[in-house]
Amino acid sequence: MSDFLTLLPPTEALHQLLRALPVVPSLPEFIDTKCSLGRVVAEPVFAPHPLPTFPRSTVDGYAVQATDTYGASDSLPAYLKIAGEIMMGAEANFALILGYCALIHTGGMLPDGADAVVMIEHTQASHTGEIEILHSVAVGENVLQVGEDVATGDEVIPAGTRVRPAEIGGLMALGLTKVAVVRKPRIGIISSGDEIIPPEILLQAGQVHDINAYTLSALIEDCGGVPVRYGIIPDQAEALHTASAQALIECDAVVITAGSSASARDLTAQIINAIGQPGVLVHGVNIRPGKPTILGVCNNKAVIGLPGNPVSALVVASLFVVPVVESLLRLRYSTGLSRKTLGPSTRARLAVNIPSQAGREDWIPVRLIDTPAGAMAEPLFGKSNLIFTLVRADGMIYIPPDITGIIAGETVEVIPLE
Amino acid sequence: MSDFLTLLPPTEALHQLLRALPVVPSLPEFIDTKCSLGRVVAEPVFAPHPLPTFPRSTVDGYAVQATDTYGASDSLPAYLKIAGEIMMGAEANFALILGYCALIHTGGMLPDGADAVVMIEHTQASHTGEIEILHSVAVGENVLQVGEDVATGDEVIPAGTRVRPAEIGGLMALGLTKVAVVRKPRIGIISSGDEIIPPEILLQAGQVHDINAYTLSALIEDCGGVPVRYGIIPDQAEALHTASAQALIECDAVVITAGSSASARDLTAQIINAIGQPGVLVHGVNIRPGKPTILGVCNNKAVIGLPGNPVSALVVASLFVVPVVESLLRLRYSTGLSRKTLGPSTRARLAVNIPSQAGREDWIPVRLIDTPAGAMAEPLFGKSNLIFTLVRADGMIYIPPDITGIIAGETVEVIPLE
Repeated sequence: MSDFLTLLPPTEALHQLLRALPVVPSLPEFIDTKCSLGRVVAEPVFAPHPLPTFPRSTVDGYAVQATDTYGASDSLPAYLKIAGEIMMGAEANFALILGYCALIHTGGMLPDGADAVVMIEHTQASHTGEIEILHSVAVGENVLQVGEDVATGDEVIPAGTRVRPAEIGGLMALGLTKVAVVRKPRIGIISSGDEIIPPEILLQAGQVHDINAYTLSALIEDCGGVPVRYGIIPDQAEALHTASAQALIECDAVVITAGSSASARDLTAQIINAIGQPGVLVHGVNIRPGKPTILGVCNNKAVIGLPGNPVSALVVASLFVVPVVESLLRLRYSTGLSRKTLGPSTRARLAVNIPSQAGREDWIPVRLIDTPAGAMAEPLFGKSNLIFTLVRADGMIYIPPDITGIIAGETVEVIPLE
Repeated sequence: MSDFLTLLPPTEALHQLLRALPVVPSLPEFIDTKCSLGRVVAEPVFAPHPLPTFPRSTVDGYAVQATDTYGASDSLPAYLKIAGEIMMGAEANFALILGYCALIHTGGMLPDGADAVVMIEHTQASHTGEIEILHSVAVGENVLQVGEDVATGDEVIPAGTRVRPAEIGGLMALGLTKVAVVRKPRIGIISSGDEIIPPEILLQAGQVHDINAYTLSALIEDCGGVPVRYGIIPDQAEALHTASAQALIECDAVVITAGSSASARDLTAQIINAIGQPGVLVHGVNIRPGKPTILGVCNNKAVIGLPGNPVSALVVASLFVVPVVESLLRLRYSTGLSRKTLGPSTRARLAVNIPSQAGREDWIPVRLIDTPAGAMAEPLFGKSNLIFTLVRADGMIYIPPDITGIIAGETVEVIPLE
């Protein structure tokens, strides 16, 4: 039977995993708003007061009662007496009555009685203490009304929002200098493989440095989790069981990168079945690279077995570990669409034909090249254990299972490799 | 004369600014590779040794001399004696001679004498100590050669590269646990405006909270700089001069958000001309929002005057402050293309017509909506001082100066609002 029939498609595999994970409420952390960039808001934020809090001029000019300007034109100006100047950051110490106007600056507070502002360009100095109004204004013209941005009690930031500079600005505008954010989930990382040694140790014949623990740490950090490294464990059932069971207790999810051989990968599945219930949900996914991926749930926590080779491990982690972290963060995509459908991408023309096997999802690293005709995507074909294939890549292109290849010259979406 | 003729287009304004800034070398910082995510590599990294360092099997199987397998098939297998098993992470204690093979696992080191690996699926156990080879292999088949990923001395990471998880993996693979990165540039931020008060203080009539200092800090942090806030300075020449001159000495670039009125903006230009040479380069840019932007250089450092209203300030900072930070970081875009041409974006159909003035570059915040026909971009028209317009936005669409509008239903690129 072909892999097409026996292996789950990645999207379905991810759904199975996420469906099996309970929504575990966690206590929010209260942190300074100014330090909240990238964190996820834990509770909806409601406006404690309106914005703006007072009627504001959007231009430099004269605050007026609009009726005083009706019919005014260059040839037939309206004449208004100057009641005074509105100082920035302060309330006027007078109310405006018919026949009067007040000098006001952009952002200044309209005095009582005023309902519009005439731009300075549409006025002309007249006798001392008097101004010619050369254009009429409608009620509300050039004025931001109280609550025009937000009204008191509005839900201004929904729970699950990832904080960007804009959200920090919105919170500060409302005087909210503290914000409740979701605690960062801890993701345990176990490297296994008898050939793996720490990067700071000199290589002996047959050994390779641990790469996956560090690429995964960076990826987890980048999407808002805390990586917890449990070191390099030999490909032995007892050692791997002990480390995995400890990580499962101490973390919110666990990632195990298997040794490279089939027997080492089978050991990972065996351990996932042993440390908690229900154990392995998906063994093998119809994707390249990444076929030997294992998805499991142990005692309500995700446990993911990644292929040992570094390119597969990083690609598969982007597709399965990142969504687990985002689910633990209870991140809300503002549009309700998944990242893959909606994630930003760069469009480029494909440099060469790429074949793909029907039924399998392919992810291919590409380099972007500037050409007079626009960006060109050049696939970096390489055996999947070549980490520098990814270093040279600007992004990945995705070939869905129902496509058997892409022809040179076609436009492709290049998903950035973060 | 129309603005179209008197104001510089944003791209030209940015080029003038960047051209006027000298390339100042700064001492690199040596940091732990595992903490280098998002930093910019200061010096090119060369491979101290090849990768892989030894010939590796890419499959589980038997290491062989390829000539021993020529002509082998299911019906006419080749018979090879088993010389032993290659343990993971170790060198074989034997050399392979003709007529022999060795059990090897994925990632294992080929013994001396072997030049190919036969997949386990293409073999069959025979008599004890002997294996049937059912398929022939070519020299080098299923083997990663020494240096196939990188050769000793290869430039593996060019200076100016922003470190992603892949770069961390590449450095670790080479045992490089320290990396030289560019020092984070310090960007001074001065908020000015008599109506502005710190977010932790309760608003009085006519006052607004400082938003820009915090949105700009977050933006600067996000692109790799260190924001240094100098507080809120009144709209008075002497106070603003003192604070700006101090920031210019202590930082690598300075951003001043002007008070909202025209006179406050003129004050910013006057200060930029006073604190260093040559002073203001560009006063006013043909962009909405953000027309009153001021770009200057004082004593070889960029000094940028941003409009006071928060939406304009954030949009303009993305277009001018971020490139200054990236230039101080000596960030290299891997493709040599600018962010705007190549930056990842989401494609969506525009929900309504958007008019735009010829000659002016427009940036319009949009919300993305999921529809059965795909993503739809709905413009959030709002007066530009409404910070929550940006909070509600998923991204911005860009209307180039030579376009007079976009029709509903057209596909637009939505640039994510980070």
